[in-house]
Amino acid sequence: MAAHVPHLYLPPPWGDGDIALSAEARHHLQRVLRRAPGSTVTYTDGLGTIGEGALGEGCVVRRSETAVPRGDLLACAVAPPHRTERARFLVEKLAELGVDRLVWLRCRHAEGAPPRPEKAGAWAVAALEQSRGAHLMEIAGPVGWSDLGDPRLVVADAAGSAAEEALPVRGDLTIAVGPEGGFAEGEVPAGAMRLGLGDRVLRTETAAIVAAGLALECRRSSR
Amino acid sequence: MAAHVPHLYLPPPWGDGDIALSAEARHHLQRVLRRAPGSTVTYTDGLGTIGEGALGEGCVVRRSETAVPRGDLLACAVAPPHRTERARFLVEKLAELGVDRLVWLRCRHAEGAPPRPEKAGAWAVAALEQSRGAHLMEIAGPVGWSDLGDPRLVVADAAGSAAEEALPVRGDLTIAVGPEGGFAEGEVPAGAMRLGLGDRVLRTETAAIVAAGLALECRRSSR
Repeated sequence: MAAHVPHLYLPPPWGDGDIALSAEARHHLQRVLRRAPGSTVTYTDGLGTIGEGALGEGCVVRRSETAVPRGDLLACAVAPPHRTERARFLVEKLAELGVDRLVWLRCRHAEGAPPRPEKAGAWAVAALEQSRGAHLMEIAGPVGWSDLGDPRLVVADAAGSAAEEALPVRGDLTIAVGPEGGFAEGEVPAGAMRLGLGDRVLRTETAAIVAAGLALECRRSSR
Repeated sequence: MAAHVPHLYLPPPWGDGDIALSAEARHHLQRVLRRAPGSTVTYTDGLGTIGEGALGEGCVVRRSETAVPRGDLLACAVAPPHRTERARFLVEKLAELGVDRLVWLRCRHAEGAPPRPEKAGAWAVAALEQSRGAHLMEIAGPVGWSDLGDPRLVVADAAGSAAEEALPVRGDLTIAVGPEGGFAEGEVPAGAMRLGLGDRVLRTETAAIVAAGLALECRRSSR
C-alpha cells in the first residue's frame, strides 16, 4: 500500500452506499492534500474494516473492503503524565503501535490530569490514519485499580523481570505504568507480574511506549 | 536511589577536588528545586562515573564514586524527523533509554534537517539527568551510509523479521531507521539485517524508540 494514498478514519455506522465526508475531511483532502475526485483513498471504521475506494463529491465511493481480525486485546493503564505534550505523545504512540485501549489510571502518587477526551480522541484518530490501522484505540478513565476489572496485569517496575518472563505471549493483557515516583506501597493488585525495563528511571510515557512495543513483539514472535 | 535526589550532569574533566557548578545549575538547584547547601545530590560525568555527594557553595562536594561499566555499544542512525518536536522526542527518549550514540542519517527520501547540535545536546543532557544515567548519549551527523563505518547493521523494515531473529544479543550494533517513505531502492548496505515492527506504518521516531527498546531488552534477557 503506497504511503501517499490517504488513509481515512470514517466513523461508523456507514450504512449501505457511499460514505459522506465531514467538512473538515473534505477541506483536508482537497485543499491540503490536493486530491481530486476519483483519486484513490483507503479508509477504516476503526472497528476492523479496511476499504479501498475513491474520492467522490463530498464522499468516499466504496470499492473493496476487508475485515482485519483483532488479536488478543492489549490495554495500557497509565498514570497521566503531568504535561500535555507528554500525554499527547503517549496517546499518539500507543495508538500508532496498535494498542487497543488506553485507560488513565488514578494512582496515589499521580502527577497530572488526563487530557480532555475530545483532544485525546483526535490524537488517536490522527495516529490511526498515519499508521494505516484498522482498529481505533479506545480511551477511557480516569479509573482506579478496582475499576480495571480483573485483567491479566503486568506492571512496569524497576525490580521486575525481563519481557520473556513477565509478558504472556497469548491472551488479553493490561500493562500498568505508574507515575515517575512509582506506585505507592500496596497499591498494585496482588498477582500482577512485574516487567523490568532496565536500569534507567523512565518517564511514564517512555515506559508505556517501550512496554507496549515489547508486548506486541512478544505476540508477533509467537505466531 | 530516591527519585527526589537531584542527579546532575557535571561535564568532565573534573580535576581532583570539588566540582564547580555552572550559574545555571546553581540557579536551578537553589531557586527551582530549593536545595540548601549540604543536601545530597548524585552526579555523573556522562562517561560512566556516578557519584554521590553534597551541595557546597557553588559546587558539588564529592563523596563516593563508582564506575558503571559500558556494555556493547548501541547506536541508532536515524533520518531526521521533519518536525522539531518529533526530533526532540526522539533525542530525549533514546538518551533516556540509554542508547550510546545517535547519528543523523542522510537518506534519499529525507524529510527533515537535524536539530541544532546545541539544542539536541541539551535535550540529551536533560534526559540523562532525568533517567539517572551514567553515560551521556553522543549525537553526530548528518552523515551518509558510507560514513557509518562498517557496523553490524539492523534496519527497521516493514518486511523484516521478528526481534529475536533480527537483533543480535551480543556485540556492538547500529539500528538504522529511515524516513516515513522508507529507504530508497538499493540505499541500504548489503548484509544488513531487517527488523520488522508490525503491520502499522510507524513514524520515524516511533520506530527508532521501539527498536531501541527491543535491542536493549534482547541484551538484558541474554545476561
